[in-house]
Amino acid sequence: MTKRIALEKKVLSENDRIAAEIRKMLGSKKIVALNLVSSPGSGKTSLLEKSLAALKSEIKMALIAGDVQTENDAKRLIRAGGEAVCPIVTGGACHLDARMVEKAIASIDLEGIQILFIENVGNLVCPSSYDLGEEMKVALISTTEGDDKPLKYPAMFRRASVMVINKIDLLGLSDFDMAKVRKNALQINGGLKIFEVSCRTGKGLDEWYSWLRSLTGRH
Amino acid sequence: MTKRIALEKKVLSENDRIAAEIRKMLGSKKIVALNLVSSPGSGKTSLLEKSLAALKSEIKMALIAGDVQTENDAKRLIRAGGEAVCPIVTGGACHLDARMVEKAIASIDLEGIQILFIENVGNLVCPSSYDLGEEMKVALISTTEGDDKPLKYPAMFRRASVMVINKIDLLGLSDFDMAKVRKNALQINGGLKIFEVSCRTGKGLDEWYSWLRSLTGRH
Repeated sequence: MTKRIALEKKVLSENDRIAAEIRKMLGSKKIVALNLVSSPGSGKTSLLEKSLAALKSEIKMALIAGDVQTENDAKRLIRAGGEAVCPIVTGGACHLDARMVEKAIASIDLEGIQILFIENVGNLVCPSSYDLGEEMKVALISTTEGDDKPLKYPAMFRRASVMVINKIDLLGLSDFDMAKVRKNALQINGGLKIFEVSCRTGKGLDEWYSWLRSLTGRH
Repeated sequence: MTKRIALEKKVLSENDRIAAEIRKMLGSKKIVALNLVSSPGSGKTSLLEKSLAALKSEIKMALIAGDVQTENDAKRLIRAGGEAVCPIVTGGACHLDARMVEKAIASIDLEGIQILFIENVGNLVCPSSYDLGEEMKVALISTTEGDDKPLKYPAMFRRASVMVINKIDLLGLSDFDMAKVRKNALQINGGLKIFEVSCRTGKGLDEWYSWLRSLTGRH
């Protein structure tokens, strides 16, 4: 078991090395990379579809869409107007790693890109361990998943800079308590920036869009 | 990388050996073990709470509740009337393995137990690779997660014997299409037994209970 852990550490340190290279390269091009993580079905692709539709005329975005199987998410993003979209099919792997992202980035024309979205595999556990060279992790949670998720999957919320609470149109139809999820999340990570949105109705998305705009203005 | 894969295989074969022992031991005691798998928040604990409340006077059940952090699920199951309940806190690991289950089983009084529920970590990817000595995997999916999930996480649905579609009370509030999810799931695994339930309203649960009853009558 010790041997396995040592090997696991080696794999992670190799990952960190590649992630650092990606970060440096993106920084030199003034591209802000956001690593979107969540459970399956929380709405990562929906949030990106909405962001593309709303902002593509003012922000130049590239998107990498990771999935265990199928390129469905990448296809949805192209239909939503994404021009620089690259799918990664992990073929069983439970997370994206920096090498996969390095390869995907190489296939995208980064000229003029301001924000690179990396949509991770739907998994609240494993992707938390893999740095992809992003500037920030954005963790999504939907109101139908329960307000206890930050406590039960703390690593992800500890390593995220932003939490997007999606499906607020379904509030009141479950026991989900907005005050409680905020308290649970901030208990794990007091620095979390929190958005409350509904990708279905559009509610709350303007604040998310404003924040994305502010990211592009910082350089 | 080859070395890592070889080591991974060794870990899995050691897991399979322990799982086979668990299966043999449970078989000798005529205990049916069900391994419940799903995304975080699909309703594994809710389904078990309902099942305990409805059936505890007629079926003797034991429950193992796996979580990355917290013993919240196990506490919920005890409050719901569970008498033989054992939490497993994986401390970061993304799945239960057979050794964890072996240890948990050793702490439970199995005398007279008819069904052993093993609630896995909320993760649609990694738990599919780990045999826990169960008789069947029961994969949950909720209507809020999207009808494409069986296609995007095929390993889990291929290895499951049963699919429980939860939160049918929220049908119509998203684009989830019941016919489509059934088609997608059966395309991956034509032998899947499918239940449609709402743990919130109770709809559809009677068929699930009848099926659990039928499991105890087979020996």
